[in-house]
Amino acid sequence: MIILIENANQLITLQGTKKKARIKEEMSNIQIIENGSVLISGDRIIATGTKASIRADYPELVSQAKIIDATGKVVMPGLVDAHTHLVFGGTRENEFQMRLNGATYMDIMNAGGGIHATTKKTREATFEHLYEKTYEHLNNFLKHGITTVESKSGYGLDWTTEEKQLQVAKKLQENHVVDVVSTFMGAHAVPAEYKNNPDAFVDIIINDMIPRVAEGNLAEFNDVFCEKGVFTPEQSRRILLAGKEHGLIPKIHADEIEPYEGAELAAEVGAISAEHLLVASDKGIRDMAEAGTVAVLLPGTAFFLKADSARGRLMIDEGVPVAISTDFNPGSSPTISLPFIMNLACMNMGMTMEEVLTATTINAAYAINRGHEIGSLEASKKADVLILDVENYQQLQYFYGMNHTHTVIKNGRVVVENGVLCSELQNVTD
Amino acid sequence: MIILIENANQLITLQGTKKKARIKEEMSNIQIIENGSVLISGDRIIATGTKASIRADYPELVSQAKIIDATGKVVMPGLVDAHTHLVFGGTRENEFQMRLNGATYMDIMNAGGGIHATTKKTREATFEHLYEKTYEHLNNFLKHGITTVESKSGYGLDWTTEEKQLQVAKKLQENHVVDVVSTFMGAHAVPAEYKNNPDAFVDIIINDMIPRVAEGNLAEFNDVFCEKGVFTPEQSRRILLAGKEHGLIPKIHADEIEPYEGAELAAEVGAISAEHLLVASDKGIRDMAEAGTVAVLLPGTAFFLKADSARGRLMIDEGVPVAISTDFNPGSSPTISLPFIMNLACMNMGMTMEEVLTATTINAAYAINRGHEIGSLEASKKADVLILDVENYQQLQYFYGMNHTHTVIKNGRVVVENGVLCSELQNVTD
Ligand SMILES: [Zn+2]
Ligand SMILES: [Zn+2]
Repeated sequence: MIILIENANQLITLQGTKKKARIKEEMSNIQIIENGSVLISGDRIIATGTKASIRADYPELVSQAKIIDATGKVVMPGLVDAHTHLVFGGTRENEFQMRLNGATYMDIMNAGGGIHATTKKTREATFEHLYEKTYEHLNNFLKHGITTVESKSGYGLDWTTEEKQLQVAKKLQENHVVDVVSTFMGAHAVPAEYKNNPDAFVDIIINDMIPRVAEGNLAEFNDVFCEKGVFTPEQSRRILLAGKEHGLIPKIHADEIEPYEGAELAAEVGAISAEHLLVASDKGIRDMAEAGTVAVLLPGTAFFLKADSARGRLMIDEGVPVAISTDFNPGSSPTISLPFIMNLACMNMGMTMEEVLTATTINAAYAINRGHEIGSLEASKKADVLILDVENYQQLQYFYGMNHTHTVIKNGRVVVENGVLCSELQNVTD
Repeated sequence: MIILIENANQLITLQGTKKKARIKEEMSNIQIIENGSVLISGDRIIATGTKASIRADYPELVSQAKIIDATGKVVMPGLVDAHTHLVFGGTRENEFQMRLNGATYMDIMNAGGGIHATTKKTREATFEHLYEKTYEHLNNFLKHGITTVESKSGYGLDWTTEEKQLQVAKKLQENHVVDVVSTFMGAHAVPAEYKNNPDAFVDIIINDMIPRVAEGNLAEFNDVFCEKGVFTPEQSRRILLAGKEHGLIPKIHADEIEPYEGAELAAEVGAISAEHLLVASDKGIRDMAEAGTVAVLLPGTAFFLKADSARGRLMIDEGVPVAISTDFNPGSSPTISLPFIMNLACMNMGMTMEEVLTATTINAAYAINRGHEIGSLEASKKADVLILDVENYQQLQYFYGMNHTHTVIKNGRVVVENGVLCSELQNVTD
């Protein structure tokens, strides 16, 4: 099928010749075409440009195209959410309510809350239940303009459940139009069973789980929660290097609560990205800049936990390529609204409106090794396109707390129209 | 038409015998019925109760009813937004961008920004343009579950434009399904023409505008921006008392930026509500509690301006009836998402999830003198009902930054279904 999007008030292509994540001023150079057109054939972008140039250069294709009129609207690449814990059992609104009402961390733990509550529910859940629930989440992502979602395991902490999570992600990658990019995160927490012997659990991850993940082709990335009381830098290093040997690209949850030289470790092991980084050290930030490690910042989690956000402004100024994501998960960031996270990045991290667009498209794509395929509108890239019901990109931040998604095109197919999901996606059993 | 909503996971009625805004513990008593039903006939609620009780008590009506199945969902009163500046020309995303990029207040003023930019655009706009634009805003409110919206004038600062704004609100009250409740706010700013003689402008408001508003039946309320550099408490008192003489109920924008004894004045003149109150004094809060003045708090404005929120927790503890609203306006709060404002009230003002529900329904209704008609689900009240795609009301705060509106019933009519506006509302020219 051929689609021609025309008359965009602003077409934001984010195109660029550089074949890696953008840094510094590159993050501001979002490439705006006024009265812009996007020509799509099959699942690929053929060309972007002004209305006149596209009509002049591609008369044959244009004559066959279904025209989508984007008058008064903004057109940009589909959003990329580079950090989620997508597949989980249960919800934890009770904990959040306790917290709002003054409960401490220990109160919540004593009430059976925290990550182990989700582990329990995820272990208990059937594959089918998790699949259906996650399918709904992906629909919801799509309605908010997100066309690619990274998905981490890590609520099993035993092989059976980790594999179940990874298989759910894999089946959804096959069946759902949203692209699901899979990360193994067996090292998300030390399971209660290994509380007194965490190294034994590390050994299981390294000797048992990682080889199985690789053999089953169940993930591209290997992530670890490097944090005081969870996994030490030494344990994290072992896990990440073991993954690397099996072809899993390292990622790392680093320096979220206490500085622990996680950013430094990310640079050292050649991680593709480091996440959270709320308390990353100056040296860690410089190391990441030098190594080209993408910082995946999660200002929603800081908002939800009433913490200070990461130093996004400083990281960009220091030359770190920055992406921002929802961190969608049932404990510390239960939202799929990447558009709202974009608001928070402006309000709470000092990022500019242009940087935020780069951070949720091309840089997010590079954070999950998809920079060659998605994240900008350029010839031969995937036709993942978002049409927004705002007059200019500034209004995405200005009209805050709202979802402005009008139309979503995924793989060259219109899957959201006027804010409404196409009917075939609305029934999970289809 | 007869409608029966059945099987609600939680039916939150907020019903109560007290015929005024709720205070203290009353704000937590939201009245939950599990497996709840709402029976509607015409534009009125006939009864609420359990499925069994409604089916037993109203067999005839039930047999004729269109059934709406709310399985797995929350049902509650339509939201009431008690404070907006709904009718305005232009937008000011450029200013917001300047601010994010470090511009000062004076930079923005020098670039032609601030309220006078909106005044200029509103003066220039035709009635038709304002009408169509505001119609779209009301549609957007409806999609977020808001069924009644207060609307202030105050971007004219001359009679012609103030009247134009009020007439737009009046025509929308007639033509649009959302209820629009009108407030005259000529005293929103001192117009540039009267910069050196603000008292002369106060005289015009008192002697010219207020009588015309009353005569034309153009508003129910009279509001004034009592703030250093805008209107003094003395000027505000004169304006509010003059309005009272003409039957206009006082409201007041008080203590937003600097303490100015605005809360005290609200109590003194018998204002129905005082708004903002970011820096209201302890005495002012006590005065309001004693007078029963509703505090209309606007945490979105504080968020957007990076200010500290009002002391909502303290106000409730001191016995002030609290409502929360969007403050929708083009300068300091360009959002219509009252659901997101509810998140902020929990996160930034220490309000509980239950208090937030009371603050956006029955207390908001009392803030605009509609407590007898809307804001709770009880027999003989208006059938303004919201069905939310969450399993319990806690999830409204937990799944943050998202709009969970599934179905909206306004005046007994289904106007939003599965998140989609009914077709007749989608075309403003209908
Ligand atoms: Zn995470
Ligand atoms: Zn206001």
